[in-house]
Amino acid sequence: MDKHIEQIRSEIDEIDSQLLQLIKQRLHFVQKIGDIKSTLGVPVYDAQREIDLIARHRTQAINQNISADLIENILKLLIQESYLNESACHKQVNTESNNVIIIGGLGKMGCLFTKQFQLSGYNTLIIDVEDKIDDARTFSDAGLVLISVPIHKTIEVINKIPPLPQNCVLADLTSTKKDPVRAMIKTHRGPVVGLHPMFGPGVKSLVNQLVIQCNGRMPKKYQWLIEQIKMWGCRVEQISPAAHDKAMAYIQALCYFITFSSGIFLEKEKMDLDSILKLSSPIYRLDLSVIGRLFDQDPELYADILLASDLNLSLIKRYVNVLTEQYHSLRKNGKADFIQKFTNTTSYFGKYAPIFHSETEQVLKHLNFLIKK
Amino acid sequence: MDKHIEQIRSEIDEIDSQLLQLIKQRLHFVQKIGDIKSTLGVPVYDAQREIDLIARHRTQAINQNISADLIENILKLLIQESYLNESACHKQVNTESNNVIIIGGLGKMGCLFTKQFQLSGYNTLIIDVEDKIDDARTFSDAGLVLISVPIHKTIEVINKIPPLPQNCVLADLTSTKKDPVRAMIKTHRGPVVGLHPMFGPGVKSLVNQLVIQCNGRMPKKYQWLIEQIKMWGCRVEQISPAAHDKAMAYIQALCYFITFSSGIFLEKEKMDLDSILKLSSPIYRLDLSVIGRLFDQDPELYADILLASDLNLSLIKRYVNVLTEQYHSLRKNGKADFIQKFTNTTSYFGKYAPIFHSETEQVLKHLNFLIKK
Repeated sequence: MDKHIEQIRSEIDEIDSQLLQLIKQRLHFVQKIGDIKSTLGVPVYDAQREIDLIARHRTQAINQNISADLIENILKLLIQESYLNESACHKQVNTESNNVIIIGGLGKMGCLFTKQFQLSGYNTLIIDVEDKIDDARTFSDAGLVLISVPIHKTIEVINKIPPLPQNCVLADLTSTKKDPVRAMIKTHRGPVVGLHPMFGPGVKSLVNQLVIQCNGRMPKKYQWLIEQIKMWGCRVEQISPAAHDKAMAYIQALCYFITFSSGIFLEKEKMDLDSILKLSSPIYRLDLSVIGRLFDQDPELYADILLASDLNLSLIKRYVNVLTEQYHSLRKNGKADFIQKFTNTTSYFGKYAPIFHSETEQVLKHLNFLIKK
Repeated sequence: MDKHIEQIRSEIDEIDSQLLQLIKQRLHFVQKIGDIKSTLGVPVYDAQREIDLIARHRTQAINQNISADLIENILKLLIQESYLNESACHKQVNTESNNVIIIGGLGKMGCLFTKQFQLSGYNTLIIDVEDKIDDARTFSDAGLVLISVPIHKTIEVINKIPPLPQNCVLADLTSTKKDPVRAMIKTHRGPVVGLHPMFGPGVKSLVNQLVIQCNGRMPKKYQWLIEQIKMWGCRVEQISPAAHDKAMAYIQALCYFITFSSGIFLEKEKMDLDSILKLSSPIYRLDLSVIGRLFDQDPELYADILLASDLNLSLIKRYVNVLTEQYHSLRKNGKADFIQKFTNTTSYFGKYAPIFHSETEQVLKHLNFLIKK
């Protein structure tokens, strides 16, 4: 093209090589800090330090007349990467009872937790969901029995567990919490806690992932388990089992129902995906992707979540009714009525309407580049 | 904490300062190339060069034992930023008829296009949607008349346009295309084209944004306009006005209806947003944000899009029916039936199920960091 352009491009190539070297060094130093922290038994994830670091770099960027958002985003990619690289073992919180038994430890989520406990130095024993578990001797040294089996088998497995040592913690990882926690309290006289990891088994790092904690009995006796999970980098939120199930009716069941039904709808309409993708805005492409991704997963898991509770079905019914009403109202009452309802709902969202708006603008800005064409 | 950690941290700070300097230099060089390209009249956006550059950097990263994804993502942030910085004027494609009249040029989308034409060296004349437009003398030198007014005023404005010069291009930017294109063909005997920018007026850059082109009459005579839009960095897809409106019933109307109704539903359920956000997985947070963002926008625009065509209402009706059916079928037929339908829809999505799955994994990985807490 133009000689001048070629010259500048080779200067950019030179800069890019230097950038690569610096990034490599940076990752190396961060890894070193991770190792030291691990030895000291300090959690690797330090939310406040992350906030401070970003604030400092934003100021520097502004002083240099560079976009602060650009620098923040690059820094976040680097921070995220260092968590992925982080293979160091995390300090073991409970040094008294070292033995962890994972029932269903061969499943995807079970594997993930088994690996975490092993990295932290616990002895782990995996029991397959099909194995016999009625021999009390298997459990005689257990400090924690963790149940990680498909939803529809959870209660059955809990009921089969033989008497556990008095101080052994009994916990589960199921997506519902009321019934499992109740069953665990019945089956075991010691400490009981229900856990719900709000992430899939495919995550590359536990840092900043959410685990919901539903107290069963004797919270002081399983505090070490909560600390251990936090040591891995997770955020932990506490809520009652009933409130958990009610929230999950919205967060999981209703969402999965809508996504499932939207897939059924597209199939019924014989929508041609190739041509619709050519015409899609980034946000519609994301919508389609969220629908399509469901159907690349295990149908049984979703059936179990949807059918786990009557709460879910009655919530879905209310949602379907609202959609039906809104359709008729749009057809019959038209624009003015739509605008009035819209404004009313804007008040309901309050401060969140503008927050969500700017949040999604950020996401949309990046969607074009996150989605590989 | 530990002296050793402090030492390493100051080394990281040093690296970060160097990174900042290199990024600044890189942006500067890229800007220079943009300036040269602009003078030469070459489009600034070069998709193939971007692909080559990323491939080359991925290889370098792998050779250096660094994550190729990390380097690709950082590079994409830098590339994206250079498009944002790009304030250079884009070469004017049509040098014969220099005059562009934008009806509705004070609106948000009108402003955006006016600015683009000005940067490319055109004379622009803005006519407000409320102004009189029946004086043919105003239009006697126009090379392009572009209509950018609210949907419900589009046809009315088109019908009021006085006779235009024979070679003047008449175009519009409305979200529907069948009726406006038909009206423009009736009102003007020269070249006519319907355009639909698939982005909001808030975008920071037109690079890689989609514009849909619906041919009206004499495409050769407005080819310069399409080339001009591509010069700004947009992708342009061609489709018939009827096919456009049919696709938009899915891409826009149905999506907006679902989002709107979901907002109404949350308000009716008196959902406490603060507590649900605490328990949300990243994908549910995104769901909620997409609902909330709607209600921070102009209700009239959405009412107009929904009510633009009977096609939309009948599509919404079919969707609501599918949801109702799926609810009853879930209640009555349970798990086996759900799994069978699920598997059937997996076949419908075909190759796209795994593609969408891995795409959304990428998005989810970044959501935690894109969403500012």
